[in-house]
Amino acid sequence: MGAGAMGEIKHLVIVKFKEGVVVEDIVKGMEKLVSEFDLVKSFEWGQDSEGPEMLTQGFTHSFSMTFDKKEDYAEFQSHPNHVEYSATFSAAIEKIVVLCFPSVRVKPSA
Amino acid sequence: MGAGAMGEIKHLVIVKFKEGVVVEDIVKGMEKLVSEFDLVKSFEWGQDSEGPEMLTQGFTHSFSMTFDKKEDYAEFQSHPNHVEYSATFSAAIEKIVVLCFPSVRVKPSA
Repeated sequence: MGAGAMGEIKHLVIVKFKEGVVVEDIVKGMEKLVSEFDLVKSFEWGQDSEGPEMLTQGFTHSFSMTFDKKEDYAEFQSHPNHVEYSATFSAAIEKIVVLCFPSVRVKPSA
Repeated sequence: MGAGAMGEIKHLVIVKFKEGVVVEDIVKGMEKLVSEFDLVKSFEWGQDSEGPEMLTQGFTHSFSMTFDKKEDYAEFQSHPNHVEYSATFSAAIEKIVVLCFPSVRVKPSA
């Protein structure tokens, strides 16, 4: 696929939280969780507070993590700390999309 | 929000393509478009071909671009080349979520 550099495994989560959820607490929990695992190579998140419903479909937050390889993601996912956090997270969301894929970086080129 | 470094503007698009669409051509078109604009700072994409429907909600592809500032995104978006590409892209998709937000990078720390 052209000049793309095949790289890390990206774990992308977009969500709409339930009304009344204190999103700041959820994010803090995720920051704490991620800080405990060296195998989480990167973690970024953001909130879209301006996009029209036609584009956002009601989703407001994006969370993305990268891992060197699929096995690292699997290890993270099955760790008790992640399992515990996931229960809290799941209870807070109204809807979610989770995608996990080898990321093709086109720009900046490697 | 903790140690997060507030940074670039991220433009995130996740889609499910219509049946019969040659996704490779769509991606090539996007790679070409992005290569024409210096103000697109990064461009990554990926395909989730294994995730369960319960998590992916049928979405298969993620495309993400970053810009230094909102104005750059607006300039890119309104450029005739982008408008033209968008028409092709829109015709190819069954569903889409678009989020645009200032990205908070927690890891690696700045």
